[in-house]
Amino acid sequence: MRYELFYWPAIQGRGEFVRLALETAGADYVDVAREGAAGMQRMLDLMQSPELKHPPFAPPFLRAGRLVIAQTANILHYLGPRLGLAPDSEAGRLWAHQLQLTVEDFLVDIHDTHHPIGANLYYEDQKPESRRRAKYFREERAPELLGYFEGVLQHNGGQRGWMLGRSLSYVDLSMFQLVAGLRYAFPKLMAGIEPDIPGLVALHDRVAGRPNPAAYLTTQRRLAFNEDGIFRHYPELDKQS
Amino acid sequence: MRYELFYWPAIQGRGEFVRLALETAGADYVDVAREGAAGMQRMLDLMQSPELKHPPFAPPFLRAGRLVIAQTANILHYLGPRLGLAPDSEAGRLWAHQLQLTVEDFLVDIHDTHHPIGANLYYEDQKPESRRRAKYFREERAPELLGYFEGVLQHNGGQRGWMLGRSLSYVDLSMFQLVAGLRYAFPKLMAGIEPDIPGLVALHDRVAGRPNPAAYLTTQRRLAFNEDGIFRHYPELDKQS
Repeated sequence: MRYELFYWPAIQGRGEFVRLALETAGADYVDVAREGAAGMQRMLDLMQSPELKHPPFAPPFLRAGRLVIAQTANILHYLGPRLGLAPDSEAGRLWAHQLQLTVEDFLVDIHDTHHPIGANLYYEDQKPESRRRAKYFREERAPELLGYFEGVLQHNGGQRGWMLGRSLSYVDLSMFQLVAGLRYAFPKLMAGIEPDIPGLVALHDRVAGRPNPAAYLTTQRRLAFNEDGIFRHYPELDKQS
Repeated sequence: MRYELFYWPAIQGRGEFVRLALETAGADYVDVAREGAAGMQRMLDLMQSPELKHPPFAPPFLRAGRLVIAQTANILHYLGPRLGLAPDSEAGRLWAHQLQLTVEDFLVDIHDTHHPIGANLYYEDQKPESRRRAKYFREERAPELLGYFEGVLQHNGGQRGWMLGRSLSYVDLSMFQLVAGLRYAFPKLMAGIEPDIPGLVALHDRVAGRPNPAAYLTTQRRLAFNEDGIFRHYPELDKQS
């Protein structure tokens, strides 16, 4: 099966969680909107198409044969077992999905540090509000959520284990991406938190060291973090030393 | 199977989407934290329990036999087929879930109209920011998302149909709750939008008129909307006439 991923071509964003899964599994896929202007047009056309039985509200979405599936966590829930990146049992799959949905909640918090007032405005138009929101993020949400994920990891397999079961899953890839993104956006905050989350830090390194993700991270398919995505480095929002 | 629902006892909140599904199906369930102080303590104890293999980050969560499942949309994804409120096919279940995840996105927007800076602060401590965020909500997010759901409904069955397939699903219950909650929180905004979403308005009424939801809505199990929940009526955040 050749999968087609549809996502904005210039940011990692939510699409990156799907890319990481496809790349890690060595899946056959096309990142449609990155195939030049024609690819982008195909994505926009498909989103508007009245033929589409199950229209997405927004990217990312995935075409898998006759299915079109949107919502990042839903896409991973579908792909996980097919790519060997999720448990077989229903209980295991629900647990993986529950964790991924908590990642999604975290992403809203991360995004809203620079867009607390609205995604329709530039960051420059909501800077005072961003400072207040980022304080709440640094002092409460980031330590709480990272602490929760660290606890799940320690409870499952300790410092050498995975987030669930005994093998790599898409949830581990999401933890890699969270650590990488937070280090980019909030380096000072992360320097302070990392001693408390040794398991997640080790997990990040183990994921990055596996052949497929390691190879992917060196290609041009891996976009750089930038100030158009979810993880943005605005020093004034980071911890002040 | 007797289900146990764990959610904050004094608000509808996210738990209401699960209550509506259980009530509509006539399921046997206990709303644990509403069984007095002891029930609330049971919820808090269970959340902290080191015995719990799959700990939730936050309520709501559901106990179903040996399973403990968190994240509202995940709970509905699990319950849907078991309560006769979701399609049987995998494609149908993914579509229902995709729509519910879009409802969850919408709930974040609705909540953040009164809490754009942080859930740790009172509304009174973030009123100017709330006014700005609510403007974005009224002018963009609310019409966009309601318009999207209206389009899905019209595409599936028109004004007398359901959100998916040919029978009531948990997505229809969520549409009922969205319309009811938005009418409570933003009556002026909704008066302006409702002519554009005749399908959703009719769907709201049809859900409310079915025997089980109709009976539930008159009981004390249905909490009133209030200013501690997601849908809060702060007139200054509504459209100004």
